[in-house]
Amino acid sequence: MITFDRTPSDYRHWRVDVEGRVATLTMDVNEDAGLVPGYKLKLNSYDLGVDIELYDALQRIRFETPQVATVVLTSGKERMFCAGANIYMLGTSSHAWKVNFCKFTNETRNGLEDSSRHDGIKFIAAVNGTCAGGGYEVALACDEILMVDDRSTVVSLPEVPLLGVLPGTGGLTRVVDKRKVRRDLADIFCTSADGVRAERAKQWGLIDDAATPNRFPELVKARAEALAAGTVRSADATGIKLNPLNRTVDDAGLHYKYVDVAYDRPGRAVTITVRAPTGEQPSTPEAIQAAGDQWWPLAMCRELDDAILLLRTNETELGLWVLKTEGDAEAVLAAGRALTQHKDYWLVRETIGYLRRTFARIDVTSRSLYAIVDQGSCFAGLLFELALAADRIYMLELLDGDDNAPVIALDEVNFGLLPEVNGQTRLATRFYGDEASVAKARSLIGQELQAKAAMDAGLITVSSDDLDWQDEIRLALEERASMSPDALIGLEANLRFPGEETLDTKIFARLSAWQNWVFYRPNSTGKEGALKLFGTGSKPNFDWERV
Amino acid sequence: MITFDRTPSDYRHWRVDVEGRVATLTMDVNEDAGLVPGYKLKLNSYDLGVDIELYDALQRIRFETPQVATVVLTSGKERMFCAGANIYMLGTSSHAWKVNFCKFTNETRNGLEDSSRHDGIKFIAAVNGTCAGGGYEVALACDEILMVDDRSTVVSLPEVPLLGVLPGTGGLTRVVDKRKVRRDLADIFCTSADGVRAERAKQWGLIDDAATPNRFPELVKARAEALAAGTVRSADATGIKLNPLNRTVDDAGLHYKYVDVAYDRPGRAVTITVRAPTGEQPSTPEAIQAAGDQWWPLAMCRELDDAILLLRTNETELGLWVLKTEGDAEAVLAAGRALTQHKDYWLVRETIGYLRRTFARIDVTSRSLYAIVDQGSCFAGLLFELALAADRIYMLELLDGDDNAPVIALDEVNFGLLPEVNGQTRLATRFYGDEASVAKARSLIGQELQAKAAMDAGLITVSSDDLDWQDEIRLALEERASMSPDALIGLEANLRFPGEETLDTKIFARLSAWQNWVFYRPNSTGKEGALKLFGTGSKPNFDWERV
Repeated sequence: MITFDRTPSDYRHWRVDVEGRVATLTMDVNEDAGLVPGYKLKLNSYDLGVDIELYDALQRIRFETPQVATVVLTSGKERMFCAGANIYMLGTSSHAWKVNFCKFTNETRNGLEDSSRHDGIKFIAAVNGTCAGGGYEVALACDEILMVDDRSTVVSLPEVPLLGVLPGTGGLTRVVDKRKVRRDLADIFCTSADGVRAERAKQWGLIDDAATPNRFPELVKARAEALAAGTVRSADATGIKLNPLNRTVDDAGLHYKYVDVAYDRPGRAVTITVRAPTGEQPSTPEAIQAAGDQWWPLAMCRELDDAILLLRTNETELGLWVLKTEGDAEAVLAAGRALTQHKDYWLVRETIGYLRRTFARIDVTSRSLYAIVDQGSCFAGLLFELALAADRIYMLELLDGDDNAPVIALDEVNFGLLPEVNGQTRLATRFYGDEASVAKARSLIGQELQAKAAMDAGLITVSSDDLDWQDEIRLALEERASMSPDALIGLEANLRFPGEETLDTKIFARLSAWQNWVFYRPNSTGKEGALKLFGTGSKPNFDWERV
Repeated sequence: MITFDRTPSDYRHWRVDVEGRVATLTMDVNEDAGLVPGYKLKLNSYDLGVDIELYDALQRIRFETPQVATVVLTSGKERMFCAGANIYMLGTSSHAWKVNFCKFTNETRNGLEDSSRHDGIKFIAAVNGTCAGGGYEVALACDEILMVDDRSTVVSLPEVPLLGVLPGTGGLTRVVDKRKVRRDLADIFCTSADGVRAERAKQWGLIDDAATPNRFPELVKARAEALAAGTVRSADATGIKLNPLNRTVDDAGLHYKYVDVAYDRPGRAVTITVRAPTGEQPSTPEAIQAAGDQWWPLAMCRELDDAILLLRTNETELGLWVLKTEGDAEAVLAAGRALTQHKDYWLVRETIGYLRRTFARIDVTSRSLYAIVDQGSCFAGLLFELALAADRIYMLELLDGDDNAPVIALDEVNFGLLPEVNGQTRLATRFYGDEASVAKARSLIGQELQAKAAMDAGLITVSSDDLDWQDEIRLALEERASMSPDALIGLEANLRFPGEETLDTKIFARLSAWQNWVFYRPNSTGKEGALKLFGTGSKPNFDWERV
């Protein structure tokens, strides 16, 4: 079982140094510490394990050192920034592993941009040596790319000429859509195995600035401080500790305090239940700070994030996620009020950011998602976002006036705090930005909506009465679980991203689709494919057909 | 060799009836007239041959019957509108064939929307019987979908549940992005093999209106006339005849009057040379009308269109298209002046539309495209669009003042007449909408630009002097032709569509990528895949892994 929780004292590949408002994240990959056997992580190349540590380090910077306003990513190796994803790891791993690995690394990179956009942390890639493939893709996700100009260091995306695959962790998308490198120059860049040195890289827009080795530390420091100057992060904030997760794993599933995951292997499904908090909820910044990582929105989010990552990586045949909630809706709404009211308090802002990125993981998860609103559920406010992320929402309808009838409820959280990767709220996406529908939904804030009212407002998909409920749900689950997983993945990736496009939607729904196709073709991963043969000295044997 | 030119008297699958301002295109597929052997076109299902006729019929409506303002697509079968792409054809054809087939059908459907948006022809799908899969996808491309309400007729997209593939001819994209069917309802619709009858279809937004069988013809007539009322097409215009193309095919390539295609099989490349017109160019609507299909912009466009389609379908291993021009740039600019000046004259408008759609075919062609500006070339105005469509532009640089130095030139045609599928001009796309760069380019209208000036304005990619030119080009071609075709396809599909997204870019660069992946996976096309086993009574054997 691959796990995603890490402790800084156990890092094998990264160092974190904080000095004033600047954190330096130094990549210094231990080549003998690959996540699975079979390859050496030479030349500061990475595998999933390296990236899991990076993710952990970023989370701790967000929560444990709130004074940090700029993060500098650099390398601890001589003349080698990062050679990208390890090619032997890619060459020996399964299709599903490659795709899942790319998804997680994409999310971590998109997370840099998310923190920069919303939460005041800026990122600098201090490219102090050769920067190739995935190494340059990490740099592309930063706000600024600074490069040492020593007449030999290059940036490159050599995937196409060397490996017969794409720069699929956002590289192709960011070169054009983010950095606006002219597309014919991008074409030259992305088909050149040699890469581009500092002068031309700056001219083409591939980097922001460069300096000689002597002057480079000074340039990085100056830019780091300049970027820190405008931050919303407070120099006086005191961090909280992210303590180890309390998680039990057994044959039945994954068990946390607020999240429970129950496997249904014969049904190829899994039920994820999120529990409301109990007792009084902190309502002031001081109380939230005192609660620390035990504050429900944060604690629940950490558990949900962990569960998503574990399921994606370890349970690939459980193709249908059934999303449920349990507990006191009023407590969820109380937590939502704290989120809304104190959204500018650093810990609340970071928690909102974490929730935004975790719910965004759900949007891009290649599993079918059904939300089930039944008795005892609490799909209110923050937790109703879970339902809105689902492909369908089923709701039990009881007779009018029945006190046991399940309800849903909206609050301010649903109207702006948690935009999807397309930059819109889930409600706005649901209604294609139709203002009347969104206004109607907003007018329902504060009401408990039973199935009929929820249906009228377009907030659920299917309602079913007591008599039919069990059969309705059983059939819906069976039917979904019987269909081709591949076709469902493609279907969901197309239906979940209507309307406005962003870097993120282009990366997940377009670039990833092409990369998946390329990864599956013999020209890359066949016995004589370029990815398989890399480093052997043998030339790949291509099928020359253009399709 | 598959050809794309057709004559109405030889149609096997379609009837065209023109009455006043309304043309009715009746699909009545001859099940024994498949394009290649091995399947029967039952239930008004289609293959590439059926679609080639549809494309021909639409072209003739555009040019031969300019009074037509509304086109009604309907079926000549009892209770069966169209069952979509023929499943046995899909099940028995190669990956490349399926992908190319989908591309052409996509272009024909996008062409309906293009004509509606720009040229005043509106389209109605008169769904007079069961409408499934690709049948509903044709309907989705129309301006309005009208459906018979007889309590049995349904619309459906059953690809996912029945075949393990996607509704990949725009279906998934149009259901959400065009018709704005709520995404959870779209999810139900696209996973239901049974489909949806008129009442629910209208409620969900899948159709625009419905009527009982008795009232249906009346409804269609009323809507056709209403849509015709607002058209820019003139009731008094006289059509021109689209005469058979004069084309020679031999081992060396394809030869037309204005377009020449030369194969380089060892180099896996092909050179496409477009020739300028000679002699005086028509400059009045009368003269253009008199020239008819021999008017250079139209004649050249027809030849280029035909060459593109023949190369795509028949020469899949020639992965690099080298684009050249030859002749008198002044004559090209004269033709451009006529296009700009008389753009509202019906025949000019239709020619511009045809050029727009033909150049759009180039943008989505899965071949590498290099434009070569050398001596004797005429990349001016309209023909410079060809260069702008390329992945790279190489230009020969001679000494200043050398009269033989090749030049490029811009004119008004480059600034609005021929938007790409992303809705922007190629120049605006090239410069990511940067107004200063576009204004700089506009200021160069009327100038002959040698390589240095062209380079300074960002209009070409690489310039090279006399001494290096031959080697530069040879190496560039060899290098490109040595790379993995799959990786290049993915690369080009990502770099060619930066910035703004439209239905078309979403269909070509996203939906198609997913469909390609799904088509290549064993769950659809393996021995026990759903597409292969359809109709045999055997159940597919799926790999349940989600990737």
